[in-house]
Amino acid sequence: MLSRVVDTGFSFAVQAHAGGRARAGEIRTPHGTINTPAFIPVGTKATVKAVLPESMRDLGAQAILANAYHLYLQPGADIVAEAGGLGAFMNWPGPTFTDSGGFQVMSLGAGFKKVLAMDPGHRDDDVIADGKERLARVDDDGVTFRSHLDGSEHRFTPEVSMQVQHALGADIIFAFDELTTLNNTFDYQVASLERTRLWADRCLAEHDRLRSPDLPYQALFGVIQGAQYEELRRKAAQDLGRMAFDGFGIGGAIDKRNLSDIVGWVTDELPDDRPRHLLGIGEPGDLFAGVAAGADTFDCVSPSREARNSAVYSPDGRFNLLASAHRRAFEPIDPTCDCYTCQHYTRAYLHHAFKAKEMVASTLATIHNIRFTVRLVESIRQSILDHDFDAYRAEFTGRYSAGSRAAVRD
Amino acid sequence: MLSRVVDTGFSFAVQAHAGGRARAGEIRTPHGTINTPAFIPVGTKATVKAVLPESMRDLGAQAILANAYHLYLQPGADIVAEAGGLGAFMNWPGPTFTDSGGFQVMSLGAGFKKVLAMDPGHRDDDVIADGKERLARVDDDGVTFRSHLDGSEHRFTPEVSMQVQHALGADIIFAFDELTTLNNTFDYQVASLERTRLWADRCLAEHDRLRSPDLPYQALFGVIQGAQYEELRRKAAQDLGRMAFDGFGIGGAIDKRNLSDIVGWVTDELPDDRPRHLLGIGEPGDLFAGVAAGADTFDCVSPSREARNSAVYSPDGRFNLLASAHRRAFEPIDPTCDCYTCQHYTRAYLHHAFKAKEMVASTLATIHNIRFTVRLVESIRQSILDHDFDAYRAEFTGRYSAGSRAAVRD
Repeated sequence: MLSRVVDTGFSFAVQAHAGGRARAGEIRTPHGTINTPAFIPVGTKATVKAVLPESMRDLGAQAILANAYHLYLQPGADIVAEAGGLGAFMNWPGPTFTDSGGFQVMSLGAGFKKVLAMDPGHRDDDVIADGKERLARVDDDGVTFRSHLDGSEHRFTPEVSMQVQHALGADIIFAFDELTTLNNTFDYQVASLERTRLWADRCLAEHDRLRSPDLPYQALFGVIQGAQYEELRRKAAQDLGRMAFDGFGIGGAIDKRNLSDIVGWVTDELPDDRPRHLLGIGEPGDLFAGVAAGADTFDCVSPSREARNSAVYSPDGRFNLLASAHRRAFEPIDPTCDCYTCQHYTRAYLHHAFKAKEMVASTLATIHNIRFTVRLVESIRQSILDHDFDAYRAEFTGRYSAGSRAAVRD
Repeated sequence: MLSRVVDTGFSFAVQAHAGGRARAGEIRTPHGTINTPAFIPVGTKATVKAVLPESMRDLGAQAILANAYHLYLQPGADIVAEAGGLGAFMNWPGPTFTDSGGFQVMSLGAGFKKVLAMDPGHRDDDVIADGKERLARVDDDGVTFRSHLDGSEHRFTPEVSMQVQHALGADIIFAFDELTTLNNTFDYQVASLERTRLWADRCLAEHDRLRSPDLPYQALFGVIQGAQYEELRRKAAQDLGRMAFDGFGIGGAIDKRNLSDIVGWVTDELPDDRPRHLLGIGEPGDLFAGVAAGADTFDCVSPSREARNSAVYSPDGRFNLLASAHRRAFEPIDPTCDCYTCQHYTRAYLHHAFKAKEMVASTLATIHNIRFTVRLVESIRQSILDHDFDAYRAEFTGRYSAGSRAAVRD
């Protein structure tokens, strides 16, 4: 029997497995292919801070992830749509992602950071940060929040998030979810997870309603929450895994200690034939842990944020360019690195530029840290294809951790 | 009779004249050729703010000018020397200039800006800015000043300036001069000019002593001061014009009102066979006036400083990208511009990036303003070669001024 297959321009294929859950694959999107595992640099407000898209392409970035919340507030999704969508607006011809705004309406709108950092001084299901008026309020229909820019009141529902993300037009978009913290009670987590499940259904319905055959296909990823609870994470992955999502995000407050467990529970339950994006994770050691637990793609502001604070990565660990040891260091950050910065600039120049508070310091350090991270994940991919992942992980993380500890002692 | 000509790698030739004093020429340096008139972007601290040298090359910059004062304080001229000199340190392969520090030890060291802006509230020859302790003190031997970074005390003499500029290794360097203001009395100007003349002699002597046949030739330019006084400007040009300088700088507090007169008096007296650099001038109208009065090269922070403040140039005048009119302007800053920014970005994107306080806004606007200025001076050069300078000046400045006035009214 023949079935008619419509080529949406989006597909995912697993190419190789290594040991446990680690896998290499390929995501095709209407704007290009992403070889996985892949690190997706973050361009929150339609720019990867301090770096032109030209440089992002040169350093091997395969896609860029922007934030629906930020672009909704400034310049407005309608303006991005009029410009021809996110990629056209920011002059990035490759694949794009947008997140749903679920994280930001809570974490920025609510001044939620302290809570995410697991500050115990807050009431369970009624979060108030630092004594300030609560800026985000969740109900079963959506979230009412205040802009972190001007305090104006806004409301996101699953439908609004889909409408915003359709206007932005990224290749991969995410369902609207509720962000909880490790401080919420188990009962609250159960209720929240059910809400996120119902919102996932509403996102799919609105997504279908908004689709147009005349526009490039946008793949919708459901987001798995469930905090630190194995039972809830597995249930969420089972529930959303049965829905018609093109892929999945793994969200919520995840740190180094619970990353392997949480991602492992989730990928155990998710269908193998769809890609899994681990939201907000991108430190070198965490990337290995995420891949080992079955994640395919990653986004994180850390490589660029640390770069702007003069902290750079090398195979021998992380170090700070402002340390006086680099004043006369006429050598690159990493002699084995092929990035523009390491090919053309010494640590002495970068030390000077950071001391002098020159913007190029941030630009050059960001180029290096993103290239380092992109290249690290490329190497991880290659080690999977070569059936050498576990050995590579042990070798890299041993050297990196020892070097980082030594740099801190210096 | 045969004379032995040593090729120093430095030379200047006039290629064409237009009308009065305007001329087109060619400066050869050990690191490349500069076609004049030319605008030389400023990289104060060994970086053109917000722009990588790669982009500077792409936008047609022929040389970069850095500041001896800033590099002496941070990172230190010794470190730049160890790096292989200014060009190698900052990854700029083309010609470089450094100024002498004479302007900065007075203007920054002394907190002198108010006086330069012709604030009348200061005593003649004993400048104290804003009631703060005077940070720079001039004597016949040199200037003692405090660092604007940390208040530490330093001393520049003509010899120190030469030593610093030899360590930095730029192709074109400037003699150490005393900066006066239009508020100093005539008697003070006379005494100061004589001091600058004696310092010029000492610079030449120290420059000769420091020269090495093993290092690239550094051309030394004498600096013509004399404030707003025709008699003093002509005398300074005659005096320094007789000395063995490779070229000349025209310095001091010069503004739109007196620019044509001052530069004209000076170039009347200077030998025709050596290049003339007009220090600190770079606004579109002033470039035409400077060329008309006989200047060959120009440096100025304005194009980049204005860009960082969201003000951009176009043939129809200067305007500010933060104006709400640009929120939905899906067109480039200047549709006739060939710069990277105008080729890839709309005013709407730049408006957004400035609103969002993203660094790329400064980068993209700087690329445009410098390209605009470089290209404008290239067009001025072409108009001289085509014997069309006066007509081009009238056409450009009429349209530019009218457009800038309209933008301010908007």
